[in-house]
Amino acid sequence: MKRQPASDDVEQRGKLYEGKAKIVYATSDPKLIIQYFKDDATAFNALKKGTIVGKGVVNNRMSATLFQRLAKAGVPTHYVATLSEREMLCRRLDIIKIETIVRNVVAGSLAKRTGLEEGTPIRQPIVELYYKSDSLGDPMINDDHVRMMALATPAELAWMKRTALKINAVLRPHMLKHDLILVDFKLEFGRGAGRKLYLGDEISPDTCRLWDRATREKLDKDRFRRDLGGVEDAYQEVYRRLVGDAAGA
Amino acid sequence: MKRQPASDDVEQRGKLYEGKAKIVYATSDPKLIIQYFKDDATAFNALKKGTIVGKGVVNNRMSATLFQRLAKAGVPTHYVATLSEREMLCRRLDIIKIETIVRNVVAGSLAKRTGLEEGTPIRQPIVELYYKSDSLGDPMINDDHVRMMALATPAELAWMKRTALKINAVLRPHMLKHDLILVDFKLEFGRGAGRKLYLGDEISPDTCRLWDRATREKLDKDRFRRDLGGVEDAYQEVYRRLVGDAAGA
Repeated sequence: MKRQPASDDVEQRGKLYEGKAKIVYATSDPKLIIQYFKDDATAFNALKKGTIVGKGVVNNRMSATLFQRLAKAGVPTHYVATLSEREMLCRRLDIIKIETIVRNVVAGSLAKRTGLEEGTPIRQPIVELYYKSDSLGDPMINDDHVRMMALATPAELAWMKRTALKINAVLRPHMLKHDLILVDFKLEFGRGAGRKLYLGDEISPDTCRLWDRATREKLDKDRFRRDLGGVEDAYQEVYRRLVGDAAGA
Repeated sequence: MKRQPASDDVEQRGKLYEGKAKIVYATSDPKLIIQYFKDDATAFNALKKGTIVGKGVVNNRMSATLFQRLAKAGVPTHYVATLSEREMLCRRLDIIKIETIVRNVVAGSLAKRTGLEEGTPIRQPIVELYYKSDSLGDPMINDDHVRMMALATPAELAWMKRTALKINAVLRPHMLKHDLILVDFKLEFGRGAGRKLYLGDEISPDTCRLWDRATREKLDKDRFRRDLGGVEDAYQEVYRRLVGDAAGA
């Protein structure tokens, strides 16, 4: 049996990358990185900027909880250990430059694209691919674009789509049990050692649309995007339902 | 043997639809319509409007020539007969609300979407789908959106993509023989009697990007879109190469 990497063996090293919501640090182990979750929030390709107090803590803990749930369901994730309120130890991945979106209910850009009303249920979940490029504004792409730009091999892309739907099949009923409708969510995948694929990034109200089951109130980053107020409360409510309850249960 | 519909049996009836570049008339035969090709030109979802003198004649004759070539190659098209300089007798189709684009060279929206320079060759032709909706600005969609909106069945969509690539395999070398690079083109398909699928619409410098093989000069609607001048000359040049030569050959 191989030994699991122990968090206390690993020392933080220099900053590798600072993104909009997270900082990534190298560690003394070249196969591991640390994700540091900030409270900074951006929307509309960083045209809108702000702070959501406590967001980093919510997103770190919620992502950890959901990554562990997914791992149990057989989905390989980059999660290794929770180091602190805002720090997650992760496998170092070569991130594939595709954002994979799964949708269960029409919202956001899908409402604009199709003319269908926000809230329209989708019979069979749909998957969308976006080219992860800030300078281009993350445009939607299709399988042929992925091949043309060699963003992923056909086998990798097929695995990503299949895994995205599997993740949906795990998370959607789990969230519904906590009275949350999983409207849609964004995933990022990457290649680890030996080009094995893992789920990376985070799963949080920054990357998921979550609506209250009864009231359909938005409990996610759309409150920030659309200036709906109560942004911090929404993040805390999701935390209470998905992490607080899990600790108690 | 079934008798081919003879154009002199058919009388024009009322206008069914007036589009940006064509008018569609009913005929005395409910299975047939007449496409009338106008000189009107629009671009950028009709934000830009103008006239290209003689365009209707070029597009009608060029489409007829290419539809006949495709029919010989086994591609079912709506073309029945040429009635006049600007009138084409066609099968009446229930048009599928998808614009299918095939691309051989990066240009237009693909350059914007990918950040690749216009003129970059594409090793293996790519297919894109757009939702045919003026009010939504013809947004790009994927196979899952097609299924969700029930725009086409999975079998129809597979046929459309396969046929689009087959059309490319016929037209691209044909145009190259006439010193034209087929950069990209738009197709529309529809259902005829018994839901059999046919290629509809037109194939012209309105719907294809065509570059001169040697100079890479644009010989298509981009001259109008981008105010490059010499618009009429470009259409006439394409006509001369693809229709004039064919008559002589």
